[in-house]
Amino acid sequence: MNGIKHVCIVGIGLIGGSIGLALKEYSPGIVVIGHVRNAPAGSRAIELGIVDMAEQEPAAAVSQADVVFLASPPAAIKDNLQQIAPFLKPGCLVTDVASTKMSIMKWAEAYLPAAVDFVGGHPMAGKEVSGMEAAEAGLFNGCTYCLVPGKDCSDHGSDLAEGLARGLGGRPLFLTAEEHDEAVAGISHLPLVLASILVRATTDHRKWELMSQLAASGYRDSTRLALQHPAMNRDICLTNGDMIKVWLDTISEEIARFRELIDRGDPGALERAFEEAGRARRTWWEGYAKKSPR
Amino acid sequence: MNGIKHVCIVGIGLIGGSIGLALKEYSPGIVVIGHVRNAPAGSRAIELGIVDMAEQEPAAAVSQADVVFLASPPAAIKDNLQQIAPFLKPGCLVTDVASTKMSIMKWAEAYLPAAVDFVGGHPMAGKEVSGMEAAEAGLFNGCTYCLVPGKDCSDHGSDLAEGLARGLGGRPLFLTAEEHDEAVAGISHLPLVLASILVRATTDHRKWELMSQLAASGYRDSTRLALQHPAMNRDICLTNGDMIKVWLDTISEEIARFRELIDRGDPGALERAFEEAGRARRTWWEGYAKKSPR
Repeated sequence: MNGIKHVCIVGIGLIGGSIGLALKEYSPGIVVIGHVRNAPAGSRAIELGIVDMAEQEPAAAVSQADVVFLASPPAAIKDNLQQIAPFLKPGCLVTDVASTKMSIMKWAEAYLPAAVDFVGGHPMAGKEVSGMEAAEAGLFNGCTYCLVPGKDCSDHGSDLAEGLARGLGGRPLFLTAEEHDEAVAGISHLPLVLASILVRATTDHRKWELMSQLAASGYRDSTRLALQHPAMNRDICLTNGDMIKVWLDTISEEIARFRELIDRGDPGALERAFEEAGRARRTWWEGYAKKSPR
Repeated sequence: MNGIKHVCIVGIGLIGGSIGLALKEYSPGIVVIGHVRNAPAGSRAIELGIVDMAEQEPAAAVSQADVVFLASPPAAIKDNLQQIAPFLKPGCLVTDVASTKMSIMKWAEAYLPAAVDFVGGHPMAGKEVSGMEAAEAGLFNGCTYCLVPGKDCSDHGSDLAEGLARGLGGRPLFLTAEEHDEAVAGISHLPLVLASILVRATTDHRKWELMSQLAASGYRDSTRLALQHPAMNRDICLTNGDMIKVWLDTISEEIARFRELIDRGDPGALERAFEEAGRARRTWWEGYAKKSPR
């Protein structure tokens, strides 16, 4: 990683922790500093081999860093940017890993000094468990790694972000914040909101006690995303609410269409609808599995 | 399995095949006859150790059987019942494994002779792959096995069905056809319809090409049920459409509620909603995992 000596990770959870582990494994020689909220978190991150040292003060955490990864929940990134801005080294790259980009690009433009580069980032990888204990170096292997360069980002900054995404094991994909937020609202935020909606609709039902005994692997998989961190989901809704609402409207229309199909009871039309969905799902999966060995 | 010598399985797919394998493994000595549509299917079922012999004629398949399992897709069971009815041995037990029960109970009452017992059955187990090649003896281990005795079913018939459900590895649960269909519509049919709806809404979108590159494990799990057999899903909608429509309405209302929550943008209310969903999902899973070692 051409010339990078110090990397700071702000927020050591599943993603931040996995970045640390991947850097230590794939790019030995880089010094990784964790910016943590309290001493025990810092000690644990060092124990787990995620960081070389931990700092609670922004100045101490970022002033030497060539690259700063912001790995807090989306809404916290606003504060992070304001806190670290005064202490950043000129010419350094700041990037994040949040699952929404439009709000974050605006905050970065508002709070970061002109002398630093910002590239919004979003590795399309995760697990339903959170926290640094679940971190793993291979989390990003083969994943699509979205990159959104800031308005005034230098070519050097973009190249560096691309190299880092690749260095972590990802496949970099440059796109705009709008493109990102619309697409991710459909394939990630909508599914997680739907999972929570499905859990609420079923577990609130007067017959849930019986239903809970019948629910099995299908229910388990359909509702797995409801286990994601509530604060993370909250921030996703707060920072990408407009796109999610459009997708919820699309789903409501599709539900109405499907309800009509069931109402009509035409066996051929019903089978075709399920066949088409199955085929589209298989086509996607074949492409995904080819690219992502995990 | 007190006194059972011959068992016939009508339809050797994933479920019918797994019943055969489980009978052979857990109850050696029982002769298992497969009622198949063609000779190659019969030969393959024998090769896989699912059945001892295969028959294409209803008379030959069922006339000796003490127990008949109907393991075809839901809508085919109507024909199955009519075809086998004339050849059933007096006193035998007929049962099925379909995922809807109200229609099937009506058909059984209409077509079966008074001298045989009918108990509707539904083991809450499955996989997203279908066909006898995917069958496994342990498929039902620890699963809830729903049982709905027919109106004139004898105690002997109910006891036998209960013993068989247990013998296959399941946990028998007696309930009415209405209770079953409403509950299963919520925890199984609704999720599979929603998975197909989610696939259609996303893959039909003008930005799907980009989205397909960003979709990852969350999308994979949320849409897995769209891979279920289209003819099976069609039959589920044809035989349990009314219950599914009620559930689709419930989901639409819950979507509207959640949309409003996002619109209001109240961080506390949003976090609470996700927290509650996560807690309910975890509570269910802990109970499920304790009972079902698979």
